[in-house]
Amino acid sequence: MHRCVLPVHGGKVFFMAIVSPSLLSADFAHLQADCRRVLEAGAEFLHFDVMDGHFVPNISFGAPVLKSISRAVCAFYDVHLMLTDPLQYVDSFAKAGASLISFHMESNSPVGETIDAIHAAGCKAGLVLKPATPAQEVFQWLNQVELVLVMSVEPGFSGQSFLPSALSKLREIRKQADQVNPGLLLEVDGGVGRATAPACCEAGANVLVAGSAVFGAQDPAAEVAFLRGL
Amino acid sequence: MHRCVLPVHGGKVFFMAIVSPSLLSADFAHLQADCRRVLEAGAEFLHFDVMDGHFVPNISFGAPVLKSISRAVCAFYDVHLMLTDPLQYVDSFAKAGASLISFHMESNSPVGETIDAIHAAGCKAGLVLKPATPAQEVFQWLNQVELVLVMSVEPGFSGQSFLPSALSKLREIRKQADQVNPGLLLEVDGGVGRATAPACCEAGANVLVAGSAVFGAQDPAAEVAFLRGL
Repeated sequence: MHRCVLPVHGGKVFFMAIVSPSLLSADFAHLQADCRRVLEAGAEFLHFDVMDGHFVPNISFGAPVLKSISRAVCAFYDVHLMLTDPLQYVDSFAKAGASLISFHMESNSPVGETIDAIHAAGCKAGLVLKPATPAQEVFQWLNQVELVLVMSVEPGFSGQSFLPSALSKLREIRKQADQVNPGLLLEVDGGVGRATAPACCEAGANVLVAGSAVFGAQDPAAEVAFLRGL
Repeated sequence: MHRCVLPVHGGKVFFMAIVSPSLLSADFAHLQADCRRVLEAGAEFLHFDVMDGHFVPNISFGAPVLKSISRAVCAFYDVHLMLTDPLQYVDSFAKAGASLISFHMESNSPVGETIDAIHAAGCKAGLVLKPATPAQEVFQWLNQVELVLVMSVEPGFSGQSFLPSALSKLREIRKQADQVNPGLLLEVDGGVGRATAPACCEAGANVLVAGSAVFGAQDPAAEVAFLRGL
């Protein structure tokens, strides 16, 4: 079984929420400066949303951007593939500097084979669920991955409100993981901020994806400190 | 008929080759600095290659990156959509700051409707031909677009050599354009550098896409000056 060992926590089990600011809200004209700013503010991960315009109706950024930024800024790159066929792209994102690669249960790639390819490429593996996909879909894979990402908005659109149905899903997955993979990272993405993050952590989440709540904040350090302390 | 009026040329017909460095070869950690460097070196356009991982087998970058850089750096953004359905994305790239949007004859979008959508969005329009697509395919549209882009490598892969078959295609299109749209911008992309650019210009090209030949050059100004002077 692959267990998550985060260098930032010295191999110990984490005890606070990890904050993973989404680069979707960053300024791409000055990406190095923006990434350093949120890392200095206390963020442990950088969340990298890859959209292909087919699996979701937007095109964000891909391996060339990851390659540049991962060389310029040392961080844990939490790469979320919103792709029709993620298996086809595992190697290029691993080579470009991904630390963890997560992909959708709703994609066309075979789950087990894709997890194996991610591990073979030297990365941690994660599974992602859209709002309509039930928690049970990931149960059989929980002991093979390091992270599960629960989408609390429909992926690919911005400016949506947090869907409260994500909370019960987080609880179900955390309960199941307690039996088979207690170190599982349980991440939540979409509308996560001061108002919604406490309930997410109470439901079992320990990684919070924050977009404009961190990159757009007047005081990013205060936002990260709040989210981490949950 | 839409005629190309380039602000950089004060509305006059250009008399030198325009250089359009491809951001695919830029450093995305410091995009503003990299773009300014090539513009100061004399490049008139910035070429923005959008790949969706379906129409071509790579994912590059999309509207979020264009939005950031177009706000930070004032330039003529020459956006090349390598997408299965470009019509669906015209508005988002126009809003993100595109000056010109070109799309493939081999895409699924209807050509006339897509040209109209690009113009309606306030951008110049371009048509792109893959190496296997004959010049004649664009003839009927030549008086409706500002630019035709001839691919001199297979789009979506890097490190390919210039295909000499592009030269006869450039000649055929220039000859036809002389009759119906003498101001047509004729662009060539793929393996264009000191060795291949002179033949391209002789064949009728007046916009040269250069990747590593400019962004990767020790002296970008010297490379741009060479290409512009052709």
